[in-house]
Amino acid sequence: MIPENLIKQIAFIKEIDKIKYIQRKTKLFNSDRNENDAEHSWHLAVMAIVLAEHSNEPIDVLKVVKMVLIHDIVEIDAGDTFIYDTQKNHDNTDEERIAANRIFGLLPKEQANELIEIWEEFEAGITKEAKFARAMDRLEPLLQNTSNNGGTWREFNVSYDKVYNKKKVINEGSTTLWDFAEKLINESVEKGILNKE
Amino acid sequence: MIPENLIKQIAFIKEIDKIKYIQRKTKLFNSDRNENDAEHSWHLAVMAIVLAEHSNEPIDVLKVVKMVLIHDIVEIDAGDTFIYDTQKNHDNTDEERIAANRIFGLLPKEQANELIEIWEEFEAGITKEAKFARAMDRLEPLLQNTSNNGGTWREFNVSYDKVYNKKKVINEGSTTLWDFAEKLINESVEKGILNKE
Repeated sequence: MIPENLIKQIAFIKEIDKIKYIQRKTKLFNSDRNENDAEHSWHLAVMAIVLAEHSNEPIDVLKVVKMVLIHDIVEIDAGDTFIYDTQKNHDNTDEERIAANRIFGLLPKEQANELIEIWEEFEAGITKEAKFARAMDRLEPLLQNTSNNGGTWREFNVSYDKVYNKKKVINEGSTTLWDFAEKLINESVEKGILNKE
Repeated sequence: MIPENLIKQIAFIKEIDKIKYIQRKTKLFNSDRNENDAEHSWHLAVMAIVLAEHSNEPIDVLKVVKMVLIHDIVEIDAGDTFIYDTQKNHDNTDEERIAANRIFGLLPKEQANELIEIWEEFEAGITKEAKFARAMDRLEPLLQNTSNNGGTWREFNVSYDKVYNKKKVINEGSTTLWDFAEKLINESVEKGILNKE
């Protein structure tokens, strides 16, 4: 007899395969190829493990890793919204909440509730784990765009102010990482790959 | 001043982007598209979190997650070896050990040592965390091949005995998952998507 919990978990494991088809706007490092949500989530998880020492506060690393591994699963139903999109709010929408309930809801009840809570915590960005997880989510595309001669900043004509305002939340998770990020942003202006207008 | 540790960590984070280009033989679920190592590693990490309750012994989930997130990074230098390849040994080779030293060696010394140890532990497959991590690594392609009408088994004419022998290590990590896996393998024979000789 296969336990009922396992049957539900397998259904979830099969369903989330779909994030491998969700293309982000950002390209891989030194590349023309768009990154997908699974690759992005993997990269953030390794970054969280490797960079944890720079968090402003001691963090539960497993919780941060869970957050970044699952944060984009809602996009299976809700799609990826470009962070600099001015038409659509990037933050936690009703559409995303419905998606979270449907997809995490494939899991056994208790586990579904745990992952929905972790996803909500990430989206809210208030706890120290959420702040650090969100710093990872902002840092990776910054590294990619600077390696790609401006990347999506140039492709979509995004100004210095917009980039700076989106990235400065890194500071809430890690002052050390923000000092580094700020330096990269300023160097990008000097190199002419980010416009101050 | 950017701390020296951070400069090393960023170099590592950029380098490991390359696993997104390493194609596995196995295809995504219900798909013709090959999976890459980053997607595979992401999927195993989520599986480890979701399936941990089925481990034969209580496990340190963060350690298992670290193992599966980094287990294929050596393939950046050593390449992916198909599990049913009869010419080349799939297990821990000198080539992979050199790759581990080079790539994890980009990190600050202490962190490099920790990740090399975790990778060696995964490869040795002796500890309870390594057994469970390896069970994840065997289970995912089984789920994929059964969703793909036999997938790589049919594509490369792999027999029941070979599949059974490679998959039975799942039992060392989780008897529950092995019961499920064995059932999937036997059903595959009945469906004619896996040949008994």
